[in-house]
Amino acid sequence: IADRDILFLKEQVASLHESELGDLLESLQSEQRRALVGLLGEDFDFTALTEVDESVRREIVGDLPIEQMVEGLGELDSDDAVYILEDLDPEEQDDILARLPFTERVRLRRSLDYPEETAGRRMQTEFVAVPPFWSVGQTIDYLREDENLPFSFAQVFVVDPTFRLLGAIDLDSILRSRREVRVEDIMHETSRSIPALMDQEDAAQLMSQYDLLSAAVVDENNRLVGVLTIDDVLDVIQEEAEEDIKFLGGVGDEELSDNVVSTVRSRFPWLLVNLATAILASLIIGIFDATIQQMVALAVLMPIVASMGGNAGTQTLTVTVRALATRDLDIYNAARIIRRETWIGLINGLLFAVLVAIMAFVWFGNAQLGLVIAIAMVINMVSAALAGILLPLLLDKIGVDPALASAVFVTTVTDIVGFFSFLGLAGWWFGLL
Amino acid sequence: IADRDILFLKEQVASLHESELGDLLESLQSEQRRALVGLLGEDFDFTALTEVDESVRREIVGDLPIEQMVEGLGELDSDDAVYILEDLDPEEQDDILARLPFTERVRLRRSLDYPEETAGRRMQTEFVAVPPFWSVGQTIDYLREDENLPFSFAQVFVVDPTFRLLGAIDLDSILRSRREVRVEDIMHETSRSIPALMDQEDAAQLMSQYDLLSAAVVDENNRLVGVLTIDDVLDVIQEEAEEDIKFLGGVGDEELSDNVVSTVRSRFPWLLVNLATAILASLIIGIFDATIQQMVALAVLMPIVASMGGNAGTQTLTVTVRALATRDLDIYNAARIIRRETWIGLINGLLFAVLVAIMAFVWFGNAQLGLVIAIAMVINMVSAALAGILLPLLLDKIGVDPALASAVFVTTVTDIVGFFSFLGLAGWWFGLL
Repeated sequence: IADRDILFLKEQVASLHESELGDLLESLQSEQRRALVGLLGEDFDFTALTEVDESVRREIVGDLPIEQMVEGLGELDSDDAVYILEDLDPEEQDDILARLPFTERVRLRRSLDYPEETAGRRMQTEFVAVPPFWSVGQTIDYLREDENLPFSFAQVFVVDPTFRLLGAIDLDSILRSRREVRVEDIMHETSRSIPALMDQEDAAQLMSQYDLLSAAVVDENNRLVGVLTIDDVLDVIQEEAEEDIKFLGGVGDEELSDNVVSTVRSRFPWLLVNLATAILASLIIGIFDATIQQMVALAVLMPIVASMGGNAGTQTLTVTVRALATRDLDIYNAARIIRRETWIGLINGLLFAVLVAIMAFVWFGNAQLGLVIAIAMVINMVSAALAGILLPLLLDKIGVDPALASAVFVTTVTDIVGFFSFLGLAGWWFGLL
Repeated sequence: IADRDILFLKEQVASLHESELGDLLESLQSEQRRALVGLLGEDFDFTALTEVDESVRREIVGDLPIEQMVEGLGELDSDDAVYILEDLDPEEQDDILARLPFTERVRLRRSLDYPEETAGRRMQTEFVAVPPFWSVGQTIDYLREDENLPFSFAQVFVVDPTFRLLGAIDLDSILRSRREVRVEDIMHETSRSIPALMDQEDAAQLMSQYDLLSAAVVDENNRLVGVLTIDDVLDVIQEEAEEDIKFLGGVGDEELSDNVVSTVRSRFPWLLVNLATAILASLIIGIFDATIQQMVALAVLMPIVASMGGNAGTQTLTVTVRALATRDLDIYNAARIIRRETWIGLINGLLFAVLVAIMAFVWFGNAQLGLVIAIAMVINMVSAALAGILLPLLLDKIGVDPALASAVFVTTVTDIVGFFSFLGLAGWWFGLL
């Protein structure tokens, strides 16, 4: 790049897969990236833009002249084009759409009109549809001759004259049938078509559950408007799992290519919330400062109760958040799972109560201290189980992503209950309040 | 089920998709499940077994007579059959394999001979392969006439007479080509075939990166032995993300349908490790018990330092574990990412040092205490960043899943460094040691 040996560069880049070009773009410094895209000019493969992190994409798109954007987007499948367009300002979108040919403009506009994160926004609007009375032979001839077909497809849809969806045929059934067989005899009914307004995660779960390679997307009148393919679903499922992991770990939607400043900025709020809850826990300890002064062993042991509760709560939380995400947990079995988690909390609480009681006795030679920490441990482990399951269920009920805030809330509960029950119980038992 | 109204039941169950039958089986009590499978008899759909949790599958398979197992497995695609077989004892496997027809026996045996979690174990051994000199017409005729084809397929492979892989054709290119076109002219080279011994996660990442719907699996001589399809990849990627989430949350591979006892048993070891590290942290506090007795504010404030470090460490850890899983982090950029995380730890450490210093001063009216907690905070946040990135990198290097043990290790580091730096510094500063 430094040498601007354009010919050599173009050759090299042309041999790269779009995702490799994407990785390359991400690994470059900002100016190098700009230089590379500039040098490639017309040869720049727009599909690579769908493979890079959002910050990189915005930067490249911001630099490109509008003529090149229009031309590049025109060559993309509609779902990829929408993916790039949806990051832009409405005026920029309009500007670009206005310069596209009529059919493409209508297609992209239709996707963009559906709300973000719905099946309609993610779908590909290019698809192959045939009437039910056609034969396999007619269909094959049509596929051979029509130039306007999508880049690749896995199903042919069968529709009536008003584009109402009747069924679908996998390509292998077409290939395995004789030319004279009628399309409607080999199509299977698509009872599992996806409403365009369905949330993309629900659509992804549906396709993944039924192992669908592609699914028809229909509007409210059951008219075919697009197709959702398995690679989009794969992306949605990966993003969703990624989001859960990051939220549970207390990081926002940062990416590895973000710089230090923007990462600090994105992690700061999570730490600030944690600071607030840590101070809350400290206030609880502060209530008992006189107690601690008289019996410093309490200060030594108190983090154990809090930490065990925090861990047990995180376990329950993790299971609950994932079960909600995979739709394994719903109102039908919630009561059963709550009972189950409470039992688990109680049993593990009793087991670890015995262990810490013995340890406290051996360490400080004080059997009563052992008894106190044991009772506090049981109380905190049961609270941990309840907090771990009830908080995410509550957040889910009010429409907040249960992974988002649960981790901090759950450890707040277990810290406060842990410190309060242990110090309070000890102060009352030993008369140190 | 209670009424044993077999006919009605069979009708109902037959209308269910395999994954719905799987969900039904999971939601039933053990005896009801046994009764249902017994009543269904020959009509029991074995694909449902691939949709249930492992404990449920073992139970059902254990109850089934071997004749029914043999017949049921014979009807499955080879990858599904292997999925069920691999849970059984070697003797049971041999017993069942011996009763299967020769070709199926050889196919299943070939998959089972590859180690667990490799592409070879996951692949489907039924595929369609044609020689390069065939025309599109010949291929279509072959597909129409051969009865022995896999249940469904997305690609046709092109092989030489020794089954060495030459290329692959997507079904839509076959449908769009004229009958006289030769296969080798429309095939694309499959530079991205997957060695049978490749780890299934690597294979899944590869297919997901290049958006492949199906990929050829080849042996060490580049001979085609099977095909890996996108739905298997989807399962692998989901399992992998699921595993990361669960390990980071401190739960093993438990499932929602597990009972209380087995869940307690699976969570107990994680809590035990946490107990050990919590005791370690307590020992550190114990060193400074005289210091705390003289200045009880230290006991009140010390959880703040530890908790902030734990949170910051978990953030770095989460990002690192995911970057390793998605292969975004490797030896080429590790140094850069370590530097980045250290800077983030330092900057966030300084920001929160100022905040807690002010808070400590306001609360206890002691500016020196504020200074001490500020310094301890910076030390612990930087340690948290280093622990959060170096521990998972180390585990990954020695071949341990970085998600497995990192969370506990990282919070151990931050607890110990947090308590030690804050209490030690305070003791030294105020001469209370």
